[in-house]
Order: sequence, then structure tokens, then C-alpha cells
Amino acid sequence: MILRDPVHGLVSFESAEEQIIEELLATAELQRLRRIRQLGFTSLAYPGADHTRFSHSLGAAHVMTRFVRRLRDLHHELPPDQRLDTQRAREALAAALLHDLGHGPFSHLFEAALPLAPSHETWTVRILLDSDTEVHKVLHEVDRELPARVADLVCGNHPIDYLARAVSGTFDVDRCDYLLRDAHFTGVGYGRFDLDWLLRSLRLGVAGDSGSAPPLAIDGPKGLPAIESFVLARLFMFQQVYFHKASRSSEWMLSRVLNRVRTLILDGNSLAAVPPALVDLAKRADTSLDAYLALDDMVLWECLRAWRHASDAILSELASRLFMRRLYKTYELYGSQTAPAWRDNAHSIVRDLAHNAGFDPDWHVGLDIAEDVPFNDADAAIVVLFPNGQVRAPSEVSVLLRRLSGESVDRVRLIFPPEIRAKVVESLDIIPVPGALS
Amino acid sequence: MILRDPVHGLVSFESAEEQIIEELLATAELQRLRRIRQLGFTSLAYPGADHTRFSHSLGAAHVMTRFVRRLRDLHHELPPDQRLDTQRAREALAAALLHDLGHGPFSHLFEAALPLAPSHETWTVRILLDSDTEVHKVLHEVDRELPARVADLVCGNHPIDYLARAVSGTFDVDRCDYLLRDAHFTGVGYGRFDLDWLLRSLRLGVAGDSGSAPPLAIDGPKGLPAIESFVLARLFMFQQVYFHKASRSSEWMLSRVLNRVRTLILDGNSLAAVPPALVDLAKRADTSLDAYLALDDMVLWECLRAWRHASDAILSELASRLFMRRLYKTYELYGSQTAPAWRDNAHSIVRDLAHNAGFDPDWHVGLDIAEDVPFNDADAAIVVLFPNGQVRAPSEVSVLLRRLSGESVDRVRLIFPPEIRAKVVESLDIIPVPGALS
Amino acid sequence: MILRDPVHGLVSFESAEEQIIEELLATAELQRLRRIRQLGFTSLAYPGADHTRFSHSLGAAHVMTRFVRRLRDLHHELPPDQRLDTQRAREALAAALLHDLGHGPFSHLFEAALPLAPSHETWTVRILLDSDTEVHKVLHEVDRELPARVADLVCGNHPIDYLARAVSGTFDVDRCDYLLRDAHFTGVGYGRFDLDWLLRSLRLGVAGDSGSAPPLAIDGPKGLPAIESFVLARLFMFQQVYFHKASRSSEWMLSRVLNRVRTLILDGNSLAAVPPALVDLAKRADTSLDAYLALDDMVLWECLRAWRHASDAILSELASRLFMRRLYKTYELYGSQTAPAWRDNAHSIVRDLAHNAGFDPDWHVGLDIAEDVPFNDADAAIVVLFPNGQVRAPSEVSVLLRRLSGESVDRVRLIFPPEIRAKVVESLDIIPVPGALS
Amino acid sequence: MILRDPVHGLVSFESAEEQIIEELLATAELQRLRRIRQLGFTSLAYPGADHTRFSHSLGAAHVMTRFVRRLRDLHHELPPDQRLDTQRAREALAAALLHDLGHGPFSHLFEAALPLAPSHETWTVRILLDSDTEVHKVLHEVDRELPARVADLVCGNHPIDYLARAVSGTFDVDRCDYLLRDAHFTGVGYGRFDLDWLLRSLRLGVAGDSGSAPPLAIDGPKGLPAIESFVLARLFMFQQVYFHKASRSSEWMLSRVLNRVRTLILDGNSLAAVPPALVDLAKRADTSLDAYLALDDMVLWECLRAWRHASDAILSELASRLFMRRLYKTYELYGSQTAPAWRDNAHSIVRDLAHNAGFDPDWHVGLDIAEDVPFNDADAAIVVLFPNGQVRAPSEVSVLLRRLSGESVDRVRLIFPPEIRAKVVESLDIIPVPGALS
Repeated sequence: MILRDPVHGLVSFESAEEQIIEELLATAELQRLRRIRQLGFTSLAYPGADHTRFSHSLGAAHVMTRFVRRLRDLHHELPPDQRLDTQRAREALAAALLHDLGHGPFSHLFEAALPLAPSHETWTVRILLDSDTEVHKVLHEVDRELPARVADLVCGNHPIDYLARAVSGTFDVDRCDYLLRDAHFTGVGYGRFDLDWLLRSLRLGVAGDSGSAPPLAIDGPKGLPAIESFVLARLFMFQQVYFHKASRSSEWMLSRVLNRVRTLILDGNSLAAVPPALVDLAKRADTSLDAYLALDDMVLWECLRAWRHASDAILSELASRLFMRRLYKTYELYGSQTAPAWRDNAHSIVRDLAHNAGFDPDWHVGLDIAEDVPFNDADAAIVVLFPNGQVRAPSEVSVLLRRLSGESVDRVRLIFPPEIRAKVVESLDIIPVPGALS
Repeated sequence: MILRDPVHGLVSFESAEEQIIEELLATAELQRLRRIRQLGFTSLAYPGADHTRFSHSLGAAHVMTRFVRRLRDLHHELPPDQRLDTQRAREALAAALLHDLGHGPFSHLFEAALPLAPSHETWTVRILLDSDTEVHKVLHEVDRELPARVADLVCGNHPIDYLARAVSGTFDVDRCDYLLRDAHFTGVGYGRFDLDWLLRSLRLGVAGDSGSAPPLAIDGPKGLPAIESFVLARLFMFQQVYFHKASRSSEWMLSRVLNRVRTLILDGNSLAAVPPALVDLAKRADTSLDAYLALDDMVLWECLRAWRHASDAILSELASRLFMRRLYKTYELYGSQTAPAWRDNAHSIVRDLAHNAGFDPDWHVGLDIAEDVPFNDADAAIVVLFPNGQVRAPSEVSVLLRRLSGESVDRVRLIFPPEIRAKVVESLDIIPVPGALS
Repeated sequence: MILRDPVHGLVSFESAEEQIIEELLATAELQRLRRIRQLGFTSLAYPGADHTRFSHSLGAAHVMTRFVRRLRDLHHELPPDQRLDTQRAREALAAALLHDLGHGPFSHLFEAALPLAPSHETWTVRILLDSDTEVHKVLHEVDRELPARVADLVCGNHPIDYLARAVSGTFDVDRCDYLLRDAHFTGVGYGRFDLDWLLRSLRLGVAGDSGSAPPLAIDGPKGLPAIESFVLARLFMFQQVYFHKASRSSEWMLSRVLNRVRTLILDGNSLAAVPPALVDLAKRADTSLDAYLALDDMVLWECLRAWRHASDAILSELASRLFMRRLYKTYELYGSQTAPAWRDNAHSIVRDLAHNAGFDPDWHVGLDIAEDVPFNDADAAIVVLFPNGQVRAPSEVSVLLRRLSGESVDRVRLIFPPEIRAKVVESLDIIPVPGALS
Repeated sequence: MILRDPVHGLVSFESAEEQIIEELLATAELQRLRRIRQLGFTSLAYPGADHTRFSHSLGAAHVMTRFVRRLRDLHHELPPDQRLDTQRAREALAAALLHDLGHGPFSHLFEAALPLAPSHETWTVRILLDSDTEVHKVLHEVDRELPARVADLVCGNHPIDYLARAVSGTFDVDRCDYLLRDAHFTGVGYGRFDLDWLLRSLRLGVAGDSGSAPPLAIDGPKGLPAIESFVLARLFMFQQVYFHKASRSSEWMLSRVLNRVRTLILDGNSLAAVPPALVDLAKRADTSLDAYLALDDMVLWECLRAWRHASDAILSELASRLFMRRLYKTYELYGSQTAPAWRDNAHSIVRDLAHNAGFDPDWHVGLDIAEDVPFNDADAAIVVLFPNGQVRAPSEVSVLLRRLSGESVDRVRLIFPPEIRAKVVESLDIIPVPGALS
């Protein structure tokens, strides 16, 4: 099969080992990903960001075909038992395509809103191993061990370590695709890194004594800009997109909505339009696979639509506003404002303002802390291989990586109803900030 | 407000006359367009094509701001009463933003499937004029005549003819945006034309005797490639995207589904999950504005999900397949195969094959004829203005436009269940085609 | 070797058969192409168009590596004796890289200005076959027959016809590279066609009876847009770039300069700074290979610089103006103005105006006719291969190609000194044009 | 005038204050920049990098028109005497266009090779102020003070400080253009930053007490990524392009050639083809403006061509190799290898190896140290302006800028003839490097 992808151009799966992609694409569990947006509510901030987990999964599988091709160009550097034969390539491709199977509605949001429920990785593994799923059947048909091997690989475990890292690691196919894809669909160019050069710069490092497969490496200093630009793409995308105030505010609102629903269910209230999975997850932090797979963005939008008319005032208010994109406002704290003392004082002030305006601060005010470390040398599991055979850590050779390794990107914001915005700004702007220029 | 659009880059609405955009964007009727995909089922063929009418509407408004700016650069060529003052600019912007308000679920598909129901243009006008809609209120607040003027403009009527043509004409802001947008999201590069050059090449022609506004013109032969490439972009997008076999097949399937639902309703059957608007439209070819506005892609997807389990076998089968993207296959007719005799014979053969395989041909076989004329000199309402003041028709000056004017792009296909595909190909491939090379 | 090309991205030559590229790149004859611009004087009109024949030659070789890779994917469709073995691939790559070796300064201009001299194709063959050139030595070292085989291939002759067509045909690697390259460096986006899709759509047609290799084919109707967009890219590039008025005017001025130099030499005048090759070419329409290879853009710019001070007034005037980009103006004829009667009358008027202003019309006035046929179905030597094995001519299946096949793009202009421009416009604008709208 | 630029798209100069651009473009001094490549010998490494100072100058003027437009959107924030009136805008445009007038052949290389000669900035000022140049005449015609004011501005001096910074500062129009241009023509995507966003984010800070113009500022944290990506673009371009080994090696070779010529001239040797300016510069470290302006890349290429046959063996060898791109090889030192002890030892070893192979190490071996600081908070002269009126230093708000401020990018290499490459690698690879991983 050949298709056009706006990110990668011509995408094709045609070799023997790639046949499985077409069959997997036709399964119910993968088609379900067409109904789950890649970036949750981000299209409320970036109107182009309506792309789905389905297109991302396809993209990740495509990047894996390119990774496999590159690795095979390096086969002569490997002992035969560590090469990518058809079986290993097939499981790598399947893992790349299927790694996101277990996502719930609105991707990460759903998970974050129900922290006691199984993670999306757990659901992915369940889907792969459950003999009733179509995905399982396709894999099992090819090889009865395949479902388990793909499940392992999705979790980052594989005898060939460089393959495990390509599925789940600092420079994995998942990130390679989503950075480019999110950049293309949001229009935020900063996410574009040089995938061609990155793949072309991949090498294999020096294997350990134990006969284990060698680690991934980067070809000399000439390959460094490829990984530098990858790391920067992550940094920029976190700053511009993933931590955007409108995304964070809508995400926080959804988590409030789901929490309220959970509270109401646990209190024995009856509620219209609640999917069975949600009742289960509220009551016992788990549900059946079938019930879980019946969840997707559309189902949850229909819930929001219905909950606008819920009898519970807090739920109906939050659901109405979110459905209509009447988002809560944010006040961002910078520099020394993020220190606990300043922050907690500010939070308490906003809670008071909300209370005075008739809002229950427990449901209508939030302190939102977003945090990510785009690159950590220690985790990267990648080395730089010099022409003379020497091996060095990326941050030893790159000024940029040395400076950014371990550095955290964070955004701290107070979230509150638009009705009290003027008062919040007025009250917080006058609190002194230690160390500000003016 | 400023935002990032993947198609146009930085988009901003900040001048006095642009303020209205932000207010209109916050209305329920415009937010609803977030739940209607621009290209219906096209993402089944092009996995990136999940963009919405909402982002297109924003894009069209942005193109209009550029059009207005260009026109104002030409103000010295116009008598004062034909210039774009704030009021006219505001109604042009509003019309650009609101021109698609009336679309139903899956955009054009819904309309095509219910041909007796009011058109989306009619619904747009109703929304604009109904004093209960939020859009109406925003417009009315600014100027009580504004709803009516915007409605007129959306229909292509305005005292300043060049403004009417910019909203609805051969080179209108709607097309300018959707060609670029559909190209960006499908990844089909052919849709990209040179918008900068097109806008820069706009001129005003020579006004008639009656004091009417002058027609739009293109600046000398140097502006021609801009409109040539625009016309070609349309041609290519029709061939590659809008008439793609998977789009057409899924569209045909949806129309079968809606027809079946209509038949069942008219026959008095009770059916789960049918939105009130659909019942109304089936029974009396019209519905209330509220009921209509409650329809969107998500509602219809939920219908499809429910109808998979309908007691009517034809409905459940079609809905199941469409929901799961198990699309009907197509056999395309080329050249002399499209002549009625060949075509009808082939259609009849496929109907027989379907019947023999247990499918009711009235519901499971289709003859699909897609047709469009990308450019017609006579309709274009644009002239080419030469440096020496001479005026000529585009097709007089351009080889390409002369050759393409009035030329129709068409695609004729038979549509049928995958189960009979091998037999269809086998049976039709052997029928002689007059004039084929081999 | 790996390098970055702004047009194709990552370009690498690493397989055994590609080794020869690196050796050929290091030869004096290929390095000379760094000193010959791809588009002559076009950078006087498009300030980015300073790219060289060297970068184009590299690009053409790169496209050939991709063509070879595609052909090899189709090897199973070919009898073994018609496949691309290492030897054939190597000569194809060499021919792609070397096809432009024989260009003189300013590429086609030099040739056009000295029509009796050997063509650049003749010089290419001489360079390949002359045992003293470095290029010859590299080829001969690999295989003593290689120089002759590459020379044949450059001329479009090869036992494997599809290979000959890839070097010299309607859709050859030369055009594939230069359209994209000229588009990138001029900034005229219209030249961008979909090379990925074109290569992916290549097929082999049905071989004739005689055991000859099959013709190139395009994969079904789905491949058509790739060749349609290629043909349109040519059409647009001719209209926008190759026939641009400033390019044509400067080219015409150079031809006047070289003609004047030739006349002066033949009249026995002595002239500063004339390279020996130019004297030979003037006197006997040929020169030695060494002398020819000593010519490049820089040498000719130095000539122009020197000739600004020539004692011959006509030469010094033309050289000064061209060196300083004080270009002659043009008046373009459209539609019925290009008919001989109108045209010759206008030409005669401009000659008179020049004469009255003190310019010798034989040297300072020109009638410039540029003409090209972007596509001709009969020459294309490509067929469309349908899934069912049927074969059709491109223009039978494509509306666009049918409409454009054989269609000529032409530009007719009068060229004259800027001093008489106002008078020319005034005099010609009032001559009636049959059939104009106003 | 309107033209197409591959970097900025449509470029036009049409307002009253922009008229001067067209006149300046026609001068001999600006046309000379067509014969000076922007990146010296970089096209030996990146075959697309043949773009000229002329196209860069145009691009810088274009960015200035956009800067002026942005500043005027902020006029309401400025007292009238600090606004950009027509006169100031005109001098800003002229300065942007003319800032590179004084460059010698191969841009910076020429200057670096003759360190005692006047800098290119000095030549720019001389050209502006000399009443015989065409540029001076055009400026003087408009306003007799204009040449002096433009000269001041080019040197970074102007009563309106933000204007001076836009011509010569951390984020000036020169850098804005060359980063994008060099990225486009080399194909190194890392140089692309978001110019639209940068311009849109520009603000004016808070003016000082003295009535001076306010400093440039960036609009809140939302504008930060624009300057972050600009700084990173510089970092990457230095690493990938400006400090590329082939660029540095060829630059070093040219400096050897020019040094040798200078030595020969000072020793009284007579040498073919030496332009008068070079003799002057060798003998007295200065020359006349006329002689200087007669120098360009073409003249120097002709020198190299002639010097291949010089009687001095060192000169002829270096000139031949450089003319033919037979570049000297490099051995790069990383990390602790760059410490003086390791470095000097290695240098001395390479000198010995060269000597043993018959090369004079003083002329054939070099230690090349390239160094640049892409960003320094202290020099940036830009602040971040928060919505609440607070002002902070960029590196206080941006993790990235904080980490990179003052950080130096450096490359240390030994340069030597290819003949001794194997021996150099063999000898240096075995010297222990303190701290390497293996």
C-alpha cells in the first residue's frame, strides 16, 4: 500500500515484512484511533491541530521502516545474530504502529484525569494480549509468539537493545513522528528537525563483553546537529504547544469535569450519558477491555454535550464552558514568582477572589504546574562514535547538549474563571517579585 | 488576536474593523464548525485530512483581510463611493468568516444525501437572520442592518460587485483558503498556488457607464501565472482528492445509509439514536434551526455507531462497514468506457453479480459520476489589464486558460461490495473498449 | 560521499557503482562547471539565480541514482539481459553527471551567439573521447569502452532504450533536476513538481517483438498527475523564467556583443582581452579543446569588463551597458500583434525611432522570438499502463495533456535602447490590434 | 519595483521613501556586489552556496521595510520626535541596502588575509562619502546630508538608538537576512528561524530619563521563542556552515596564497596578473578607492588561474590546488585536545611530517582556530516586556538563552596537504586524550 502523508510525503508498506501493517490498519482497535485526536484540546489553541493518533501511528511505522533500512545498511558491523531479520523487523514495525493503541479519549488527558486507572501503556498491552481483539488475531496468525513480543517491545524490552530503544527511548520513532507531525498541524515550525540527517547519522556503538547488541550511536561530530535539533524541537514544542495556556486550561477543565463526574457517581448520583467504562473507572479504577475500547473523543464530546444540562451545577457549568470553548483564564508565574512562598500566597489570593465572586474554589481555581526535561544525557543511551573509533557522551562533544542536559522546562500558572480575571491581575501584579528588573 | 495557522502562518485580527472576528469566533454557531470536518470522509483516504470547517473559516477571513488591504492600495483608482470603508470591510470579513455556517455533518455529503432538504447556503442565511442565534446578536449589536447585509454578501450580492466576487466567485477567498488548506492537510502538493502573487496582481478593471464598481482585474500578463496556477490547483485537487475513489465510495455509502434511514422512518419503523433533525428532514424535508444546529460530525458518527446494531440488515451492514472503514470497492471507467452504452451495460453486469452474491443491488451497487469544471472564462468575471490600458479576457492571453476553459474533469465509477470485486474485474476487463491502444 | 543539496536534501554516492561519481567530480573539466552559471544572465532578473552547471550536474546524477533504484524494484518484470547491472548503472550515472560538460560560458547563450560553432553536445562528446582529458582518463581507467558508451548515452543512444530516455528524453534526469533547481534558486514556485511521485509511478511498458527493452511507462491513471505537473512546471518556467524579458534582453545584448567581436576580428581589428578560443571560433567556427575549456563565465565577464573600453563605439557601448546591467528595454507583442504584418510594421517603426535617436538599428534594435513546446505526446515516448494491462497514450487519459500536447509557448518582443522607450510605447500603443477587447 | 526572492518571496519597494532603493540598485558600486559571493569558498563544501552579496543586500533592505512597518505600528507608543518619519525610514533603508558595499573579493576572506588593510566597514564608509561614487551621488541628490547619515548608521550610530540597533546589533536586518539566505542556498535547514514572529514580537521598551529613544524589546514571554530560534540558527550555522572544514581549509589556503603574493611583491618579485590594488595593499596596506572597487571574486579567480603558472613554486602549488579544489585536509581537535599542550604538540608533529614529505611547514601546515559567541545577553541590547509592564533580561526568562549566553562555539583544526593525511591520522590518533571515554 502507498499513501500520502502530509508530514513524510510518500509512505509505502510493500515488502514482505511490511505486509502486516496493512492488515493491522484494518482492525477495529486501530481504526478507533481515528477518533482520538493526537493533541487532545490543543486545537482550541492551534486551530489546525485536529490530527489523530491514527495518522501518528502510521507515521511512526513509516519512520520505523526507515530506521530498519538504515540499520540494515550497517549490518556488516554486526554479528549475524544481532541483525534485523524479517521476524525482528516485523515486530519492530508492529510495535511502532501499535504503541498508542491503549490511549483513551483526548490522549493523555483522560489518563491524567483518572490517575488511579490503568495507564494507556497497560491498556496497549491488554489489547495486544487479549485473544479476542482483532489486533491480537492478526499478530497471532503470523506467529503465535508475536503478540507477546510486540507487547514487550512496546514496553521497551527486547533482546536487541537498539531495537527496544527505537521503539521507546530518547530518540524513538514515536517522538520522531510526533514532533514533526505536531509541528506540521499546529504550524509551529520550531518542531521541525532534520529526520533525514538523524537517520543517516545513526551508527552502532561498541558492543559490551557479554555478546549483547551494541548501543545506538551517532556518526561522529557531523551527526551531532541532528540530535541537537531534535532536542531543541522537543524543548520548543513543550514551550509553545504542549504547555500552551489554552491547552493547559482546557485540560485542567476536563480533569475537573471527570473528577466531578467521579465524585457524583461515588456519591450515588445518577447521571445521564455516562459510558459504562467511566462508571467502572470511577467505582473500581478499572473496567473491561470492551468497555474501554468503546471510549473515544467522540463519546466524550457527547458526554460533555449532555452534561451541559446536568442537574449538578458545578458539572453543568464546567461542561458548558468547555464544550463552548469558554476557557478559564491563566496567570503565569515567572522566575522567582514560582518559589513556593510567592506561589502559595498568590494561589490563596485567587481562591479568595473566586469565593467572593460565588465560585467554589475547590472546583473553579487551580494551580497548574507543567514540567518536562527535554534531554538528559544519562538517559539518552546514545553515544557519539568518532572516526578513530573513540566514543564520547553527546554532552561532552556538544556545547548545546551539555548546557541543556537535565534542564527542566516548566510553566506554573493559576487557573480561574474569566469573571475574576481583572481582579486577579490587579491583585497579583502588585505583589513584589524578588529580583525583577522593574 | 493573533494565532498560528499552519497554512497562512501568523494570522491576526487587530484593526477596528477586524474586532468583530474575535466576537464571532466565540459564538456557539461558529464553535460548532469545530465539530464538522472540512472534507467529510476524505481522511479515510488521506490520513492527515482531519481539518475542520472552523479552521477553514478562519483562513477565509484571513485571506479577506489581505484582499481588503490590497484593494485599499488601489483606492486612488476608485471614486470615493466605491472604496472599502470600515463598514464594507467589516461586512466582507464577517461574510468570509461566516460563509460556511450552515454546513451539516460531513459538509457537502449530508446535503447531497438529502437533496430535498434546504441547502447549506439556505441554513447559513437562516442562522444569520434568526434573531436568536449568537451570530445574529453579535452582528446586530454592531449595526442592525449587518445580519441582512452579510447574508446578501454570502449569497454573492452586494452593491460593490468586486466585493461580492471576493466572497463568492471564481477566485473568491473561500477557494483561496480551501485549496491551500486541503493541500496542506492531505499532503497533495498540487493544490498549492501562489496566493501572494495572486493578491499582488489584483487590480480593478474599467468601470461601466452606470457608475457601478469596476470589475476585478489581473495586472497585465505578469499576473497571469497566478490565476493559471490557481485554476490548475483546482483541477489537480478535484482529480486527486475530491474525486478520490475512497472519498467517493465512503460518500456514496453514507448517502445509502441516510437514504435507508429515511426510508425506514417513512415506513414507520422506529430506530435508535436518530437525532430529531433527521426525522424531520426525512418526513418533511425541513427542520427547526435549533434541531439543525444540534447536528455535527460527532452526532452522526454516534448514529453510525448505534446503527451498526440496527435491526434492519441493510442499514446495520452499511453502517458497520462505514464505521469500520470497510469500504466498497470501485471500478473506474476511462475514455470511451464512460459512454452510456458501455457504462450501462457494465452497471447492469455488476448489479447481477451483486444479486447473485446475495446483495440487494439497489442498496449495494452504485454508479458514481463525479464532475466539475475547474474554470470557465465566461463565469470568471475577471479581466486582464494591460499596461497600456487595454483589457482582454484571460483565455485570450493565456494558452493554458484558453485550453482549459469549460473543460470538465469527470470520474465515472461503479461501486460494489468487496466480496464481488474479483468477479467484477474479471467480467468488465474483457468487455471491448472502442479505441483503446491494446 | 555525502553532501547537502538545497534541492534534493541529503545526496550520497556510496555504492560500488557510484564510486565513479566522486572521482569524476574531482576532474578539471567538471570543476570548470563551477564557473558556468546554469541560467546565464537570469540572475539579472531573479537575484537568487546564481547556481552553477556544477550543482545541476550533481543533481542530475542524484536523480539518476533514484531512477536506477526504482528501475531495480521493477527488475522482476524484465528479462535478465535487459536489467540494470552494475556496468549499465555506472554508465547511466556517469552520463547524467557529465551531460553538460561541453557548455560554454553563460550556458546556452554562448552557443546561440555563435551558431556556426560546434554545439555544446559536440563539445561534451569531444571531452569524453579525447584521451587527454581527466574525465576521459577516469572513465577509461574503469573500462576502456566506457568513454564511448557514455558519449553515446549522452547523445540519447543506448541498447537499453529506457536508459537512453532517462538521460535524454521528455522526462529525463536533466529536466527533473533543472526544473526543481531553477525553481529553488529563482524563487518561482511553479517549477516544483512531485519528483517522489514521478519516480514511484515509473513502470516499464510492454516490450516489442524484437526483444528490445520495454518503453518507460506510468503506473495507471494514479501516476498521471506526476507527469501532468512536470509538463506544467516546464510550461510555467518557460513563461516566467526562461522567457523573462530581462533574461531575453541581456541574452540578446550578449549575442550582439559577440557578433560585434566576431565582425571586428574578421575585419582584422585587434581587440584587447580576446581569449584565443573566441578568435578561432570567429575565424574558422571551431577551436581546440584546450582553448575551449579555458572559456568560462569568469573569462567572459573579464572580456566584457575590458571591452567597455574598446575603441569600437558599438562594442564599448553594448559591453558597458551589459556589464552594468543597463539593459535594453522590451515591448512585448500579444495575440494578433504577433502576426507578421503587425510585427514587421512595429519593428520597422522602432528601427526608425532608434535611427533618429542616433543608434544604428542593425546593432541596437532586435526582434526577439522565443518559442518552446513544453509537451508533445508523440515525442514523449511514455505510455500509461493500466491495472488490467491495457496501455494508453498519456493524452488519451489526461484532459490536461490532451489540451497541451503540441501547444507552443511563445514570446515576441522588440528590443531597443532605454533612451527611446517612451517614444516606442507611444508609437506602438496607438496602432490598432485586430480583435482586442478595447 | 517588485521582484521575486527565493528567501523572502515577493519583495517590493514602492512607497515614496523606498524609491531610493531602485536608484541605488542601479549604481556601479552595488552592481559590483553581484560579482562577490556571500560565502566566499563555501560552495566548495555546499554546492548550492553561490549566492551573492547583491542578493543579500536586497534581502536586508527588504527586512528593513518590514522592520519599519512594524515600528510604525508602534508609533502611538512613541513621542513624535522619536518616530520613523520618511527621512529616517529612507536612511534606514539605504543603510540596510548599502551596509556591505565595502566587501572585497570572497567577502570576509580577503579582509582576513590582509589584516593590515582597511576593513570592509572602512571601505563602505569611503564609498558612501566619496563624492565620485555613483552611490554617493544618488544619496546626495536626495539630501546632501544623507551620505554622512547613512555612513553613521552603517557604523551603528544614530540618534534613534533602536534604528542603529536594527542596522547593526544582535538582531539586525543583516543577520536576519543572511541566516535565512545561507540556509536556503546551502540547504542547511537549521538556519531557518521564524522571521514573521520575530518582527511581530518587536516592541519598544521603556525609554530612559534623558528623552532618548526607548530600546528594542520583545513582546512578553510569547515573543521569546522567536529570539531563541534566531540565536540557535546562528549557533547551528556557525557549526555547520561557517566553520565547515572545507570552507576553513580553502579560506586558509587563500590566505596563504595572498600572503605569499604579498611576500613576493615585498621581495621585489614581478608577478603576472596582479591587480594594482593588491600591489598597493601589499606595499602600503592601503589603496585608492577606484583600485579597490576594481576588485571582485572574478578578478581574484583570474589571479588564481594565472598564478597556477607562477615561477614561485609555493605560490603555483597553492594556487593550482585551490583553483582545482584540491583542498588541504584537516584534523579536528575535540574537548581536551584543544588545550594548548596537546594542541601545540600535535601541531609540531604535523609540521615535522610535512617537512619530511618535502613541504615547507610555514606555508603548507596551519593551525586553524575558529571561534564565535552566538549570543551574549549583555550585548543584546534587547529586553523582554511583560504584559504588566515589567521588563526583564532575555536570559532571565529563557532557559535556553541563560544557558547559551556568552557560550563560545569553537573549532580547532590542523591543516596540511593530503599527501601526509594517513601519517597525520596515524600519529595523532594514538596520543592519549585526557578524559575521553575510550
